[in-house]
Amino acid sequence: MNTVDLVIGIDIGGTKTKIGLVDKAGNCLSQMYFRTKDHPDLDTYLEEVKRSVDGLMQELPQKPNILGCGIGAPNASSKRGTIENAANLLWKGSVPILEKLKEKMPMPMRLMNDASAAALGEMLFGSGKNMTDFIVITLGTGFGAGIVANGKLIDGYDGFAGELGHVDMTVGDGRLTGLGVRGGLEAYVSATGLKRTIMYLQSKYMDDSRFRNIAYNDLHGEDITKAAEEGDVIALKAFDYTARMMALALANFTAFTQPEAFILMGGLTNSGKWIMEPLNKYFNEFLLEVYKGKVKIVTSGMPGKTAAICGAAALIWENHR
Amino acid sequence: MNTVDLVIGIDIGGTKTKIGLVDKAGNCLSQMYFRTKDHPDLDTYLEEVKRSVDGLMQELPQKPNILGCGIGAPNASSKRGTIENAANLLWKGSVPILEKLKEKMPMPMRLMNDASAAALGEMLFGSGKNMTDFIVITLGTGFGAGIVANGKLIDGYDGFAGELGHVDMTVGDGRLTGLGVRGGLEAYVSATGLKRTIMYLQSKYMDDSRFRNIAYNDLHGEDITKAAEEGDVIALKAFDYTARMMALALANFTAFTQPEAFILMGGLTNSGKWIMEPLNKYFNEFLLEVYKGKVKIVTSGMPGKTAAICGAAALIWENHR
Repeated sequence: MNTVDLVIGIDIGGTKTKIGLVDKAGNCLSQMYFRTKDHPDLDTYLEEVKRSVDGLMQELPQKPNILGCGIGAPNASSKRGTIENAANLLWKGSVPILEKLKEKMPMPMRLMNDASAAALGEMLFGSGKNMTDFIVITLGTGFGAGIVANGKLIDGYDGFAGELGHVDMTVGDGRLTGLGVRGGLEAYVSATGLKRTIMYLQSKYMDDSRFRNIAYNDLHGEDITKAAEEGDVIALKAFDYTARMMALALANFTAFTQPEAFILMGGLTNSGKWIMEPLNKYFNEFLLEVYKGKVKIVTSGMPGKTAAICGAAALIWENHR
Repeated sequence: MNTVDLVIGIDIGGTKTKIGLVDKAGNCLSQMYFRTKDHPDLDTYLEEVKRSVDGLMQELPQKPNILGCGIGAPNASSKRGTIENAANLLWKGSVPILEKLKEKMPMPMRLMNDASAAALGEMLFGSGKNMTDFIVITLGTGFGAGIVANGKLIDGYDGFAGELGHVDMTVGDGRLTGLGVRGGLEAYVSATGLKRTIMYLQSKYMDDSRFRNIAYNDLHGEDITKAAEEGDVIALKAFDYTARMMALALANFTAFTQPEAFILMGGLTNSGKWIMEPLNKYFNEFLLEVYKGKVKIVTSGMPGKTAAICGAAALIWENHR
């Protein structure tokens, strides 16, 4: 029986944990997910991870040769192997997740900020293949960024570069993020931010809307896209508001490393033209003259459902090229 | 007679053009300056540059062996050798300065954004010697930034990285920069920004102040420092206001590349503790928890008067190591 070299990719998100087995070309051969928030206890969470990996291996037609395990997580320090004070996770303080998971699954293992992992994934398998300067933006429960400049991922002095969701967009006079940053970008531009904007716009305007009958906790991103398709005024205004704030942020980020492209991924990108059209319009408006026409906004070049898994797996595949 | 290897360093600023001869260790052996704005015509400006260089050479005790000429300028594209739409210079549009100066002084020549040149200078000769991740901030007529990450200067896709003076700090509801960017950082944090703040605070408060008798065009940075020393309330509030805006910007920038240090240089740093004390206070307040205690704010490690010249010369010295 032939064997196939594979890497385990684990994406720890605020809502879901996604796990998959990824081959050298970036194909995710087998995958599954479970709800992260069902496991407030780290130990039972890691047991669930191990059970999931074992299950995936049994599904494979070929015998896998596992090269290692890459993990993407919010607020992860690549240099220390820890997750620290993540706003959207239940485990608080400094969590030594790499060490704990290695005890259960001994193998080469690497942890990185989820958005940095995604950037590495785009560089190896996706839209970043032929670029030396780009920024990956992940729009899920939060807002993440992975920055590539001079053809290398920017880690930062201590492994915490790219925490752009906590950039203050409003000079201290705006919404609070989960980390208590007032005016923090991810309080506006993320799946959660879009929901908060639906609330805000109901306070600001008197337009009739399907959202007048839906409570915050019952509200999902897909509902907002569907409402926009049906012409719901609050939904349309919410996309416009979100896109404008995001365009301002991306125009500001351009002045930093001048990327050739922003590569977008995550839940909010599923809203397609409802977010992308106003985003492109405002982005061209806000962009400094010297950058106009030189910065693209594209979506991930990896299959939507498995992009984050492939990104995590790229942490190990990077060392096998 | 012995010869000495030297590089010509030229710093083109909105107010002054500084020219010097720099040795391998970063010592500026001979220097002079003239007013940039006296030469609205590029050709007569470049004649003045050439005359100045010739003058400097004659002052030297040793015969110089000139290796080349490095030029730092605002809005410079290292990749094209041009200055483009600089807000604080009189020459408008795209100025092919490298080509034009080479006609007058044929030698190896390299042009770079002034703040990026300064960053290279700090890396070779100054406070950045032992760091792989730092950001140089130049606080002159405008606000510039040179970013080093992974031990390399970040150029950007097209040579225009680090234009952080035009980052919008106020969600489109603030002062206009010289480039027409509303809320642009340099409209607040620069020598010019400090003067504008003196005006603003006279509108906002009724405190008595020496500035009630000084017109905007007669106002100089040194006056504001001196007034602060004498307890002038408007001067003290102006430093506090400027430092707070700058602290917010630096806290935001930290989330981008997570530098080990910000290295400050330029006119505004001459105000010493009046700017540095409130800056450090607000910076620690605004910094995200995960970065606290890990990011230093220091001043340039190069002699104040010649730092920009040494930075420009570093463009050539970098290739002779």
